[in-house]
Amino acid sequence: MTTDSDAGQFRIEHDTMGEVQVPVDALWRAQTQRAVQNFPISGRGLERSQIRALGLVKGAAARVNGRIGVLGQQLADAIAAAADEVAAGQHDSHFPVDVFQTGSGTSSNMNANEVIATLAGRALSSTGESVHPNDHVNASQSSNDVFPTTIHLAATEAVATDVIPALEHLATALRRRAADWADVVKAGRTHLMDAVPITLGQEAGGWATQTEYGAARLRDVLPRLGQLPIGGTAVGTGLNAPDGFGAAVVEELRAATGLDVLSEAADHIEAQGARDGLVEASGALRTVAVSLFKIANDIRWLGSGPRTGLAELHLPDLQPGSSIMPGKVNPVICEATMMVAAQVIGNDATVAFSGSQGNLELNVMMPVMARNVLESARLLAAAARLLADKVVDGAEADVERTREYAESSPSVVTPLNSYLGYEEAASIAKQSLKERKTIREVVLERGHVENGKLTLEQLDSALDVLAMTQRRSG
Amino acid sequence: MTTDSDAGQFRIEHDTMGEVQVPVDALWRAQTQRAVQNFPISGRGLERSQIRALGLVKGAAARVNGRIGVLGQQLADAIAAAADEVAAGQHDSHFPVDVFQTGSGTSSNMNANEVIATLAGRALSSTGESVHPNDHVNASQSSNDVFPTTIHLAATEAVATDVIPALEHLATALRRRAADWADVVKAGRTHLMDAVPITLGQEAGGWATQTEYGAARLRDVLPRLGQLPIGGTAVGTGLNAPDGFGAAVVEELRAATGLDVLSEAADHIEAQGARDGLVEASGALRTVAVSLFKIANDIRWLGSGPRTGLAELHLPDLQPGSSIMPGKVNPVICEATMMVAAQVIGNDATVAFSGSQGNLELNVMMPVMARNVLESARLLAAAARLLADKVVDGAEADVERTREYAESSPSVVTPLNSYLGYEEAASIAKQSLKERKTIREVVLERGHVENGKLTLEQLDSALDVLAMTQRRSG
Amino acid sequence: MTTDSDAGQFRIEHDTMGEVQVPVDALWRAQTQRAVQNFPISGRGLERSQIRALGLVKGAAARVNGRIGVLGQQLADAIAAAADEVAAGQHDSHFPVDVFQTGSGTSSNMNANEVIATLAGRALSSTGESVHPNDHVNASQSSNDVFPTTIHLAATEAVATDVIPALEHLATALRRRAADWADVVKAGRTHLMDAVPITLGQEAGGWATQTEYGAARLRDVLPRLGQLPIGGTAVGTGLNAPDGFGAAVVEELRAATGLDVLSEAADHIEAQGARDGLVEASGALRTVAVSLFKIANDIRWLGSGPRTGLAELHLPDLQPGSSIMPGKVNPVICEATMMVAAQVIGNDATVAFSGSQGNLELNVMMPVMARNVLESARLLAAAARLLADKVVDGAEADVERTREYAESSPSVVTPLNSYLGYEEAASIAKQSLKERKTIREVVLERGHVENGKLTLEQLDSALDVLAMTQRRSG
Amino acid sequence: MTTDSDAGQFRIEHDTMGEVQVPVDALWRAQTQRAVQNFPISGRGLERSQIRALGLVKGAAARVNGRIGVLGQQLADAIAAAADEVAAGQHDSHFPVDVFQTGSGTSSNMNANEVIATLAGRALSSTGESVHPNDHVNASQSSNDVFPTTIHLAATEAVATDVIPALEHLATALRRRAADWADVVKAGRTHLMDAVPITLGQEAGGWATQTEYGAARLRDVLPRLGQLPIGGTAVGTGLNAPDGFGAAVVEELRAATGLDVLSEAADHIEAQGARDGLVEASGALRTVAVSLFKIANDIRWLGSGPRTGLAELHLPDLQPGSSIMPGKVNPVICEATMMVAAQVIGNDATVAFSGSQGNLELNVMMPVMARNVLESARLLAAAARLLADKVVDGAEADVERTREYAESSPSVVTPLNSYLGYEEAASIAKQSLKERKTIREVVLERGHVENGKLTLEQLDSALDVLAMTQRRSG
Repeated sequence: MTTDSDAGQFRIEHDTMGEVQVPVDALWRAQTQRAVQNFPISGRGLERSQIRALGLVKGAAARVNGRIGVLGQQLADAIAAAADEVAAGQHDSHFPVDVFQTGSGTSSNMNANEVIATLAGRALSSTGESVHPNDHVNASQSSNDVFPTTIHLAATEAVATDVIPALEHLATALRRRAADWADVVKAGRTHLMDAVPITLGQEAGGWATQTEYGAARLRDVLPRLGQLPIGGTAVGTGLNAPDGFGAAVVEELRAATGLDVLSEAADHIEAQGARDGLVEASGALRTVAVSLFKIANDIRWLGSGPRTGLAELHLPDLQPGSSIMPGKVNPVICEATMMVAAQVIGNDATVAFSGSQGNLELNVMMPVMARNVLESARLLAAAARLLADKVVDGAEADVERTREYAESSPSVVTPLNSYLGYEEAASIAKQSLKERKTIREVVLERGHVENGKLTLEQLDSALDVLAMTQRRSG
Repeated sequence: MTTDSDAGQFRIEHDTMGEVQVPVDALWRAQTQRAVQNFPISGRGLERSQIRALGLVKGAAARVNGRIGVLGQQLADAIAAAADEVAAGQHDSHFPVDVFQTGSGTSSNMNANEVIATLAGRALSSTGESVHPNDHVNASQSSNDVFPTTIHLAATEAVATDVIPALEHLATALRRRAADWADVVKAGRTHLMDAVPITLGQEAGGWATQTEYGAARLRDVLPRLGQLPIGGTAVGTGLNAPDGFGAAVVEELRAATGLDVLSEAADHIEAQGARDGLVEASGALRTVAVSLFKIANDIRWLGSGPRTGLAELHLPDLQPGSSIMPGKVNPVICEATMMVAAQVIGNDATVAFSGSQGNLELNVMMPVMARNVLESARLLAAAARLLADKVVDGAEADVERTREYAESSPSVVTPLNSYLGYEEAASIAKQSLKERKTIREVVLERGHVENGKLTLEQLDSALDVLAMTQRRSG
Repeated sequence: MTTDSDAGQFRIEHDTMGEVQVPVDALWRAQTQRAVQNFPISGRGLERSQIRALGLVKGAAARVNGRIGVLGQQLADAIAAAADEVAAGQHDSHFPVDVFQTGSGTSSNMNANEVIATLAGRALSSTGESVHPNDHVNASQSSNDVFPTTIHLAATEAVATDVIPALEHLATALRRRAADWADVVKAGRTHLMDAVPITLGQEAGGWATQTEYGAARLRDVLPRLGQLPIGGTAVGTGLNAPDGFGAAVVEELRAATGLDVLSEAADHIEAQGARDGLVEASGALRTVAVSLFKIANDIRWLGSGPRTGLAELHLPDLQPGSSIMPGKVNPVICEATMMVAAQVIGNDATVAFSGSQGNLELNVMMPVMARNVLESARLLAAAARLLADKVVDGAEADVERTREYAESSPSVVTPLNSYLGYEEAASIAKQSLKERKTIREVVLERGHVENGKLTLEQLDSALDVLAMTQRRSG
Repeated sequence: MTTDSDAGQFRIEHDTMGEVQVPVDALWRAQTQRAVQNFPISGRGLERSQIRALGLVKGAAARVNGRIGVLGQQLADAIAAAADEVAAGQHDSHFPVDVFQTGSGTSSNMNANEVIATLAGRALSSTGESVHPNDHVNASQSSNDVFPTTIHLAATEAVATDVIPALEHLATALRRRAADWADVVKAGRTHLMDAVPITLGQEAGGWATQTEYGAARLRDVLPRLGQLPIGGTAVGTGLNAPDGFGAAVVEELRAATGLDVLSEAADHIEAQGARDGLVEASGALRTVAVSLFKIANDIRWLGSGPRTGLAELHLPDLQPGSSIMPGKVNPVICEATMMVAAQVIGNDATVAFSGSQGNLELNVMMPVMARNVLESARLLAAAARLLADKVVDGAEADVERTREYAESSPSVVTPLNSYLGYEEAASIAKQSLKERKTIREVVLERGHVENGKLTLEQLDSALDVLAMTQRRSG
């Protein structure tokens, strides 16, 4: 957001409203500078992924404009080359416009037009050809189709190449642990209260399924998220855009990104008046956040202790804990993940609110929607990977404790009904609870094996808590 | 929620915790009664659609239990018949348990078990066979698989047979108007400011597309929403459920409802520990709400006036307006729709929050999730139909005014650039604005036709605002 | 919502738009009936507390209109008497209009006007005087000032006489337990991990403080919530309302309700164009929900077990648990409270969204704001009382277990640093953890008392976990 | 977040878990470095205002520790001096830890401890005295009391010295315009439909009142927001903190900031286990956002046009609009303000969610709560000032158009009832609407003045729309 040019060194730029002082080294021009001065709000510009998308769209548009003769080939090539540099991240510091700006993103579109015009102009300086931000870089385009196109492009790319692979990475890690822990039997807990046994592997498998479904949810929204408004120009009617321009630009973008899910918006009026595709995608990201919250929360509770918690899992030690309490280590990645989830839930509220506020031919809440969707994607991808690499991979089950818990849950008494009757079973359960003994201990103590009600084998088979996790009576 | 039985008339019922006084005419028994007394909170019970689902699940379970021999055929038949009555809505007043109850919905599951046991017991009274709520009606089941099954079943049915058809109904109405208004040219508005022309038909088409995409969004979530946990019993391991029980029940439910999208949960641990499918579905409903908000808001703004607003549309008069201001008629259905959207957005926040709060083998926020998802579905379906029938169908365009607006928008000057040059065009636009004249009037007044800059035909062709909505320059 | 009149029996009523069939026994008239037909949406009408407020406002207005001569005394008296019946709840079934209706609440205002006109007309039938819903019952009023007045009145009353006392009730219960448990020392837990000791009484005291602060938060918003728009009529300018009308009505309402916090809106334009007071109040209710969620969640975790959880508290048994798992009892009131909190958080999202959607002289999201604020108040009051009466009052601490935990937390080693040095202390902590022994056992086992490093008295004093909870070294 | 030190140049630091490579120029040490590596999530660190608060708290603590002898005076002075530099913003680039980190903020607390220890150590290098991050900089403190103290301190300062003054600035601007526009009569609009007259000054006054109430709301939450947990150390019991330490630190902070509203937390258990004060404050900020949204939205609608909108206000031209549509200027600050509101609403959702997720002695969602509350404050303050300076100050009313609207609203017919009767008045209203004439024109055209129903003076007096805005009939 800061400009690195010498303080106090300015040049004069012009636009239709007059003269503007621009930092002497800035690649941007007058309109960007006005926006810098109009919007000193958050100190935060567009997400890098959206600047990349701006570069990609400008490059694609220039290539198409060159091919169909809207621009001369030399000019088109120079613009495309400059746009490629923007896409590659070489000029991010020249995108100083705050994300809280004009609701159409016009200021950022003009920022891109100006930076690219300057770069292309330099490249063509020997030819004497000048490059105009509007007439050339923005040719056949309008902020109203370009800006939402960049959001959807960036969001599609983030989801497809960042979030989904991260979720798959986490799911793979969880599936591996589901196998590792297939026999680690433990007490199930419903309402937080002791329930019938389950294995830690089954729990990890459930988390893996949640994660995989999250990826599936995201895949399902991609076709709508990937519909790009480009070609609609000012209000979706395509005024001033050549026939087929939108489709051709989309084709360029598919080629540049490898994202087959991109398509030209089927209804350009909808594509510019509404931002429902972002609201939907945000809802899917939010569902992923909900899943990760549950997983992280479960894991940290299983790791609680070491002496006064559940203490079924030991999580890897990542950093020293409290200065006051030596030796304390905390489930910090779980906590960071939970905070990411909270942020994504809030970001989603912003996106949904903003999505509802479109009026007629334009939604003027676009930049804030972009910020929130793209940040959510970025945060979720990072958290999923950290959770996999720093927690799931290294967690160790306390096999002894989990089995002790499984066996001590009063609920394991259930299979004894057929040998001892429900009344006696209930009585055993109560004594077990009261005296902090296992059901097995109480059964033996009461002499049921001695007196022949059931053999030791039968007792052990009935109380085989691991078998209970696989058992479906027929 | 109140019971209509004679005040003070009670019978005694028992459960494992002792005796309870139950209203003498109540079909329910002890556990329901305890829940009535434990949860005097909202005064609102389960949604009708969930009571129906409880009846459907209990009936399906009885049929399967009968077929595989868990229950005798006579008993199974009696339970199934009673459950069918519950599904059909014959006993809704006997479901008095508040929606804010135990988080597993056990109280409502037991309510269903008790009511059905009473009904089936009466039917079998001549046979001497008694019917137990747990041992018979709940056989092979647990609240922890039954209750979420009923939510997902009810939600799937609501979305598939209520919301989606309502959206299609609205989309059809909008498409019809898109055709009616194909030539009703008007000013586009971006940032609320005058922009290039568009047709009212294009706007209606955009709304139709939003609505159709809403239906598509919902269709995409159905396969995950329709995954039913039944068969998992207490913690998802299926303990005490016969092999294949879940699949067989689901098959019965598919047959009973015609909902092919229903399936047995692929991972029963996930299906009981997480409620992500509801969070996802709620997110899709929320996206529909956002769409409807935008549509209703656009329509009421277009209908604003009659003298001091945009006044492009006249909406049907539905009821007298203010007592103080005679003749005032307001866009009441649009407003009701917007309030529905606001409610759905809030309901969705409740669902997402609740969805994140599962712990280990159970999410104990289920009843509130059910209430909110099912209410959202109900509200959206109602609003979509009302919007179609009471607003869209009868709205009338003010063709004269829209054309006047289209022609008066300074933006229509753009095509004159080639005849008069950008400078003169800008000057014309300014005069047009200042003197409240159309661009055409100013062009004629300035003598550009007289002096031969362009012919009257060229002028009219360039300023043909309707053509502008279809034009894509090549 | 259903009308109890004989099906098919109707009478004809008229309004400015023509004739309407009204159920023959209905107290309402044409405009109410139109609204019933226009808004078949949620099946839920206004909250009882708002119908009461409608009765109170209409009664107060009639009394003032009578006093200042806008209405004849006999007529004013009859209207006031009828309004009192409405306030008292005698005619709730005659308020059939859905909450999702015209955004101004005009339909419900007219519903009140019509019902009261009918009742008053009957009372005056012998005098031949007719009562008009608009000219008489609504005299000096407009829906636009009446309806928000009823929301703020109902919300103020709900907060002041329902929610705050319920919170005080809960706080009192918690303070009592804070005293009971003043010496029940236990392990503190931060990040869920074992920390230095705290007492259960301190924890209960913290919950009490949260609850008391909740009441204080609500008290702080009452002055703004209690500002009533009455007197502003259609747009806040007071057109057609006699001078001083609003103030006089408010005075009547203060007298009728005893709510000194009520006042006439200081700025009637703000009071009708914005609903910020409701948004603020909803935010305060939401903060209370957050507090109750934390308290309920803490309590259920402390009560988790009985064998595989924390098991520091035993909560009262309220109803049998799972049919599959005999003897299981769940923290059902905690769960219901958590669901109430989730609902309030969602309701608040609806209120905030709606509050932002006012345009110029009116916010047309009022009925949905009313529903959500009033429901939130009702739910929170109920949950707070239940939590106090059914959970806090009867909970029992496991004094042995909590002390065992307190002493086993590795963090208690800290005070030994001065006797044994940090290294040996850390080593002791590790052994304690590894061998599941208390710090004291390990210290004795290592012979530190025997060899004179510290006396038994010093050891016991240093490890006095209860003292640690009160200790502030100087 | 990236460190600018020479790539590959590292030094070795140690902590209790071993050795860590730290960039050679970094002021931070091992624990900060571990956190940098553990949390590569958002790329965003603490808000500047919280780093300042960290500096303030560390400085205050050092001064108190020096005074009471916990630290030697020289050491205390050196730490305080270093902390002052941190507070002043001299070392922000040495706070590289991501906001998504351990939920207690321990990493950032240690970051401050390490940076200050390094700085103080350098200052004391000639004395040979070494400075330890924990033993000295963190003396008498714990992350669990320091970190929430910094959030509340920063939030209190932001609200008191940034947001409230910005709101007052906006309110002042609006009050000025309310005076300017006191006689600019215009049509009121309710339900967006023509209503009785109001003045633009009254509307501006309503916005001013909203803004002033926003400031009042914030003032009311400050006493609870300003309660600082310092002195509670690890779990709120104050273990290891000298008596009176918390109070003394708070006194230092009051002196350093001039914020009289700061106080030591009354209940240290509540103050560390719950973060309700932040949730409440966030709710108040959210209410302010709702107000600003309504104001900005009203203003942009009044400014819509210039030809096809309401066009009652002309907003200052700030930057060129669309490249396609020459001369277009958009209400960009209004849009930025609306996006700020949307962000604050989402941030608030994050804060409320996070606030509910505390467990027992700690809420581990603190850093994300800090980010969102502090960002919301920052955004709102910026938007309020911009709205005042760039929109409200320079807006110009279209006096002619507003009066034309006021007079053309059919609702102005109301005062003629007494002269012409309701029927004729209604008929006049209808003709007026149909023929796009003013009520006055129609009355004259129908000959009512000619035929003596009322004089021209009476007609003009009755139709005096400005008088109507002030009129309260008696």
